[in-house]
Amino acid sequence: MNLHHEELEVRTHGKGLYEITDEVQSKIDNCGVRNGTVTVFVQHTSCSIVIMENADPTARRDLEEFFERLVPEDADYFTHDSEGSDDMPSHIRMVLTRSSETIPIVERRMQLGTWQGIFLFEHRRAPHRRKVFITTIGE
Amino acid sequence: MNLHHEELEVRTHGKGLYEITDEVQSKIDNCGVRNGTVTVFVQHTSCSIVIMENADPTARRDLEEFFERLVPEDADYFTHDSEGSDDMPSHIRMVLTRSSETIPIVERRMQLGTWQGIFLFEHRRAPHRRKVFITTIGE
Amino acid sequence: MNLHHEELEVRTHGKGLYEITDEVQSKIDNCGVRNGTVTVFVQHTSCSIVIMENADPTARRDLEEFFERLVPEDADYFTHDSEGSDDMPSHIRMVLTRSSETIPIVERRMQLGTWQGIFLFEHRRAPHRRKVFITTIGE
Repeated sequence: MNLHHEELEVRTHGKGLYEITDEVQSKIDNCGVRNGTVTVFVQHTSCSIVIMENADPTARRDLEEFFERLVPEDADYFTHDSEGSDDMPSHIRMVLTRSSETIPIVERRMQLGTWQGIFLFEHRRAPHRRKVFITTIGE
Repeated sequence: MNLHHEELEVRTHGKGLYEITDEVQSKIDNCGVRNGTVTVFVQHTSCSIVIMENADPTARRDLEEFFERLVPEDADYFTHDSEGSDDMPSHIRMVLTRSSETIPIVERRMQLGTWQGIFLFEHRRAPHRRKVFITTIGE
Repeated sequence: MNLHHEELEVRTHGKGLYEITDEVQSKIDNCGVRNGTVTVFVQHTSCSIVIMENADPTARRDLEEFFERLVPEDADYFTHDSEGSDDMPSHIRMVLTRSSETIPIVERRMQLGTWQGIFLFEHRRAPHRRKVFITTIGE
């Protein structure tokens, strides 16, 4: 078995989707796993990992707007607001999406569909350095 | 280590949940992995993979109706609509659910609970051929 | 390859988040896997596995309140209510969250971020015994 851990730092500057597909594929290129899976795991509770349509930027903007409305910052029943009005919504958005994705690898390539990209979904307004763990398992 | 990739095509004819539990188990039966995990990954951004109650069809209909209301087709702020009014909602529904599921395997059987079934959740109205990747890792 | 399955029983007494981080780490301590991944899978369709902020209890209460409002028990279009008004909402909440999480392991420790905890998210009011499957794969 071939097992490999890599870390990726993603610098974010406000809410939104940041594509990391190429960075993840690049880690796989160098890890020696030919066939298997990769798990992309984010070590935070105020951003997410999602797979999303990566061709049309309007799709990403609509998605971001949907989440603004689904989890508004000014909900009057929020009590957890020590870090500001985007604090509690960030945890809810993370729970509604995902902390990780697992993707098959065949002949060193992630088997993403034509329009699938891997994104870090940032839920905080302030700039952050996000740590993403990339684990490949295979042969 | 025993690693095995299989592909499954699922033909859909409109929005809704399509059970694929037996098809996934059938791939495992033939792959030689006795103990491990299976990852079921869908290569699209307008349908999802979910685990859902598989006994009562009314539960599935209620779930579908909930998503119709949570992500309506006629939201006035959507700009990504090149493929029709069910285009943008399909991406949002996918992000709110999952692109993959990972399930333990013991003695060649997926360890699903009594009422758990694996479903492809189609978010488009038109008929589609969906590609599902099934990766078993184990011994 | 080192592959190990463990089962965990979680007793719940009403809706809410039940942290199981220590119980999962304890299973890893005893399983012999030094580096790899752990998949935490719940064998039910009316509760979820999520990663959530584990420092401030108010964050968990706000999350629970958000889900009460997002998926109310008294939606007039629900027809699947054989087990009571919290029956159908429990399946929807499960689909909106997750049945499993996969977390990297380095030197026998899960690589959770500072504020990340693993929680069973119970969606039913009555007490339940929940079965969680913990699968470690690695070397």
